[in-house]
Amino acid sequence: MAIHTDRKYEEELSDLRRHILEMGGLVEKQIAWAVQALTARDRALAEATIRKDHAVNRLDVEIDDLCIRLLALRQPAARDLRFITTALKITTDLERIGDMAVNISERALELADAPSLKPYIDVPRMAEIAARMLRESLDAFVREDTALALDVCRSDDEVDNLNEQIFRELLSFMIEDPQTITRAMGVLFISKYLERIADHATNIAEMVIFMVKGKSIRHVEELPPTV
Amino acid sequence: MAIHTDRKYEEELSDLRRHILEMGGLVEKQIAWAVQALTARDRALAEATIRKDHAVNRLDVEIDDLCIRLLALRQPAARDLRFITTALKITTDLERIGDMAVNISERALELADAPSLKPYIDVPRMAEIAARMLRESLDAFVREDTALALDVCRSDDEVDNLNEQIFRELLSFMIEDPQTITRAMGVLFISKYLERIADHATNIAEMVIFMVKGKSIRHVEELPPTV
Repeated sequence: MAIHTDRKYEEELSDLRRHILEMGGLVEKQIAWAVQALTARDRALAEATIRKDHAVNRLDVEIDDLCIRLLALRQPAARDLRFITTALKITTDLERIGDMAVNISERALELADAPSLKPYIDVPRMAEIAARMLRESLDAFVREDTALALDVCRSDDEVDNLNEQIFRELLSFMIEDPQTITRAMGVLFISKYLERIADHATNIAEMVIFMVKGKSIRHVEELPPTV
Repeated sequence: MAIHTDRKYEEELSDLRRHILEMGGLVEKQIAWAVQALTARDRALAEATIRKDHAVNRLDVEIDDLCIRLLALRQPAARDLRFITTALKITTDLERIGDMAVNISERALELADAPSLKPYIDVPRMAEIAARMLRESLDAFVREDTALALDVCRSDDEVDNLNEQIFRELLSFMIEDPQTITRAMGVLFISKYLERIADHATNIAEMVIFMVKGKSIRHVEELPPTV
């Protein structure tokens, strides 16, 4: 079978790419909605975001099936094989990001009726960076763009710093006024969930670099300038 | 190629099973050490647990390579194909469990010099259940034992309840005496990390059921009595 001239096979690979981007777009929306539900105290939006998780889970199963079918019927080699096995691993991260958006929505529901501690500024900023990291990690995946993947890994520090900052600020609220503890904990968990979303995006980016370069940059002390 | 009579191929599959169990054994030890470092205020053990993460990451890369090689050279079908693709996904969970053990060790270091809030009872219990879930999820994987995998999924509630209980208890500490807040937060994060370890084990068990039965039990409202 002359793999690279097989039109149907190419279409299946494109289909896989499209599905991954679709799943990514969906969880990206989930993140934005969850945080908007929080800041706007919009219970209906929080509930809609939670319900949307079914669509994410359906795509998860569909993509895994697509990958397994491609592996079984097309017996891809080298580059395509690495692409498909990476896709298999990426769906797990995307599915978990969807779970995080559900968790944020649940906290948003809890916080919707409580008086706010202060206007939300850093949380939406964190969400924006995390969503951008997610989008770019998937762009890096479909384009096999390691420079973009490395950018994503670098952004992770930014999110970690914001999370640290939010943590310290909420801690001082709690110490000053124990009445704020329950609410502060709610926001603190949301900040943690966003940090984990950024972690998942970073994992995807690391897998893209491994896929293209065969080189693992996980757990290195310092990121290389290029890969 | 008569796949099922090919001795070398069978050896490679056994090798894959063995590697997964080795990686699982290693992260299981990491969990036990991290929690022992916490309860015994043993800084050296916490640091050793953190260092051990390199071995886990090395196994992660090795197993992925093994899977990709098997897919490329053996072109496995049906059952073996599902086994190998599930192995590829499981390493991600195992690697993250290792990260959680590192996080617990880091908190253990922070808490080592602070006076304790109360004796640790629920945290070690939670760690024990989570470690057992991990072990059983991997046993279920290598034996394709869906009944055992379903047991693991059921245990997740137990861990969630303990986490809830620890959370409420620490919250009351914090509200009564704001001086305990920083320490209580440290313990609270550890409890969260253990809950996530149990989540990863549950994810592995769910993937095992999907591998064997081709049926997804993720995100169902209620677990079925059997699969």
